[in-house]
Amino acid sequence: MGQDGNLTPQKRTSSLPTTVANGRHSSGRNPPRGRQIQKTFNNIKITLLCGFVTILVLRGTIGVNLSSSGSDAVNQNLIEETNRILAEIRSDSDPTDPANPERDLFLNETYALGPRISSWDTDRKAWLENNPEFPNFVSRNKPRVLLLSGSPPNPCDNAIGDHYLLKAVKNKIDYCRLHGIEIVYNMAHLDRELAGYWAKLPMIRRLMLSHPEVEWIWWMDSDALFTDMVFEIPFDKYKDYNMVIHGYPDLFYDQKSWIALNTGSFLLRNCQWTLDLLDTWAPMGPKGPIREEAGKVVTKFLKGRPDFEADDQSALIYLLLTQKDKWMNKVQIENSYYLHGFWTGLVDTYEDLMAKYHPGYGDQRWPFVTHFVGCKPCGSYADYPVERCLRSMERAFNFADNQVLNLYGFGHRGLLSPKIKRTRNETVRPLENVDKFDIRRSSLHEKSR
Amino acid sequence: MGQDGNLTPQKRTSSLPTTVANGRHSSGRNPPRGRQIQKTFNNIKITLLCGFVTILVLRGTIGVNLSSSGSDAVNQNLIEETNRILAEIRSDSDPTDPANPERDLFLNETYALGPRISSWDTDRKAWLENNPEFPNFVSRNKPRVLLLSGSPPNPCDNAIGDHYLLKAVKNKIDYCRLHGIEIVYNMAHLDRELAGYWAKLPMIRRLMLSHPEVEWIWWMDSDALFTDMVFEIPFDKYKDYNMVIHGYPDLFYDQKSWIALNTGSFLLRNCQWTLDLLDTWAPMGPKGPIREEAGKVVTKFLKGRPDFEADDQSALIYLLLTQKDKWMNKVQIENSYYLHGFWTGLVDTYEDLMAKYHPGYGDQRWPFVTHFVGCKPCGSYADYPVERCLRSMERAFNFADNQVLNLYGFGHRGLLSPKIKRTRNETVRPLENVDKFDIRRSSLHEKSR
Repeated sequence: MGQDGNLTPQKRTSSLPTTVANGRHSSGRNPPRGRQIQKTFNNIKITLLCGFVTILVLRGTIGVNLSSSGSDAVNQNLIEETNRILAEIRSDSDPTDPANPERDLFLNETYALGPRISSWDTDRKAWLENNPEFPNFVSRNKPRVLLLSGSPPNPCDNAIGDHYLLKAVKNKIDYCRLHGIEIVYNMAHLDRELAGYWAKLPMIRRLMLSHPEVEWIWWMDSDALFTDMVFEIPFDKYKDYNMVIHGYPDLFYDQKSWIALNTGSFLLRNCQWTLDLLDTWAPMGPKGPIREEAGKVVTKFLKGRPDFEADDQSALIYLLLTQKDKWMNKVQIENSYYLHGFWTGLVDTYEDLMAKYHPGYGDQRWPFVTHFVGCKPCGSYADYPVERCLRSMERAFNFADNQVLNLYGFGHRGLLSPKIKRTRNETVRPLENVDKFDIRRSSLHEKSR
Repeated sequence: MGQDGNLTPQKRTSSLPTTVANGRHSSGRNPPRGRQIQKTFNNIKITLLCGFVTILVLRGTIGVNLSSSGSDAVNQNLIEETNRILAEIRSDSDPTDPANPERDLFLNETYALGPRISSWDTDRKAWLENNPEFPNFVSRNKPRVLLLSGSPPNPCDNAIGDHYLLKAVKNKIDYCRLHGIEIVYNMAHLDRELAGYWAKLPMIRRLMLSHPEVEWIWWMDSDALFTDMVFEIPFDKYKDYNMVIHGYPDLFYDQKSWIALNTGSFLLRNCQWTLDLLDTWAPMGPKGPIREEAGKVVTKFLKGRPDFEADDQSALIYLLLTQKDKWMNKVQIENSYYLHGFWTGLVDTYEDLMAKYHPGYGDQRWPFVTHFVGCKPCGSYADYPVERCLRSMERAFNFADNQVLNLYGFGHRGLLSPKIKRTRNETVRPLENVDKFDIRRSSLHEKSR
């Protein structure tokens, strides 16, 4: 600090604009004592002020918040503590697992989901005969179906993601309760090499082999919602098929488009054919050079595919097209109803549909499944604006929930509202409403045909 | 700003320490021009500095962050945008609902869940006879049970809360799939006056009346986890009872303790008696003066109860004690197994139990349900340290999940790890494992007796 009282900051930080001291020197005389004391005081004040400025600038870095409200500080602390705790409890103390080591498969190695099983049809048939208390059909000769879905074991990058995973699970619980379908919600990676979208393959195989009583395994993505609570898959139609998947034959056969089929919602029969398909499909999946190479192959082969590692959908389309004679006679490419319904064209139509139609059609009149491809509420980077996705998912959830609440005499106030209102008065004869409104009643089923 | 160059801040905010200007006056002479310019410069510099200080202080309020990293900014933006969107999409455009107006019930009004139904037993019996395709029992003469749980429709205050709600639902899905129990996961407030812990009452009544085929409704809190995947409730034991609740008779009858019973996990038979019980229980619940007054009454009556509004558990204990002759012959206070197991004494024992016992006991050897009372992962203010709660919930979840994954030949690497490892090699004879490890196989059931 110069003796002439010019202002020179005591400390500088990188974000503070530096004040330029314009120096003027005194002529050399000793100033009077009183003025010296005054100048000293001034200097001290300026020093204190500069020091204070420094603290203010640094507080963002050191986390000292002087003016936040009590609850903001509590929330922030809670978030930070939660993250710290989770990181700690999730740290893997045993990074190597001799039973399932991480490795990059080389291109000349063939990955296998497990040891080859070739007698599944006969083995399973014998087991069913020996275990009549576990039939492969449920009441009224409906085949026994198991719905498989799942999400990663860790919390979502985006906090709201877990909330929508929860809502999506509730949505699946509701549909499956109404239709006698069992649910497995998987939150474990059975095979490190087939993580991400490939994780469904080892899980499907594992469930087939562990649940011989299950006739169909139905994979559904965690970002797909049931939006027709009445519609039922017409299993009779598929008695000669082993795979049912939504898609478009012209996109598939003619254009070889990478989105010709959608693996967000599809069914596989529990049989040898499916084991063989999985065995053929999985080897394109192991992460590392194999998945990268496979990605290049499928990008080259399929129309419109961007360049990235192989995903399960592209790999399936590729394999079915290149080996169509082997597989396609047992694959039903279905689009007479929305086994998978791409959300963008559907979510804004719900009010119109409610005015004109009723649940049960499963098609564009009342979409069976609305699938939020590209929204990725669990991650940080979606293909669509966050607002649009959240709004649309909320609408789809409530559109479906209305159909469930209808039995109870309630409905959402609007498709964006979590609040509900009565749609029917209470009655002392509630069983009349059960007969009229329970989706499982056969009269409603007939209505949907 | 004084002419003597003393420092006076241009602006003051409440959190800035005020600098006290010590005034000294000059003798009155006009200072030389050069010194005047110098003083003016000093004043300008001080003004700029003070202005800058003000901006720094205000930036926390106006959200201008000068030094955050790119990804922090992205995350922060995402969180803020998410919250904004949610607030917007949740804003209720119809604040008044003539069918269910918000009102504070006065103390002389009696709240009712609905119109009084008095012939439920006969009506339901007739309905069951007329609808043999909806029997009140499932295979092997097990009664049809519906598990009811739920959580509020909005995202949790604490982000990690939704993740644990998701895990808790998966846990319930697993148990119920293994035991043929239907699930309803409620995310709607059917009655604004009975929100919070009271919300289960209108939902239980609604489900009873809408699902006459259901024999037992089993309420379970969202913070309760199944930790014995083999144990089954011994329904035969309760053929003469209409309510099964975990508790301690001495705490109940002798001490009148407010924690003598636990409404976190209990069963109600679908019958007239239960409708009557709910009709007697609910009037203590409506929020406002009634719930406040009821809170005072139960605090006075029950031992150890803190002073707060009436909760459903205290109200139930109060009503059962004050009307014990009317109700208690049909209430089974159960503690031979952990229909509700208070977590603090259980979660640290899991490894010991795994070493000594096996699933199926349901009691202290292998607790049926571990209930995280007081952890409140969805809210901001828990009764226990966050770290302890999250760690313990993770352990309980994995302890239970191991029992499910066992059929598939996998298990968690440790009770704190989301990662899994193989516990059995793959085999070409998977059906042998099904016979040995499927919890639904009768041999395992016998083992648990």
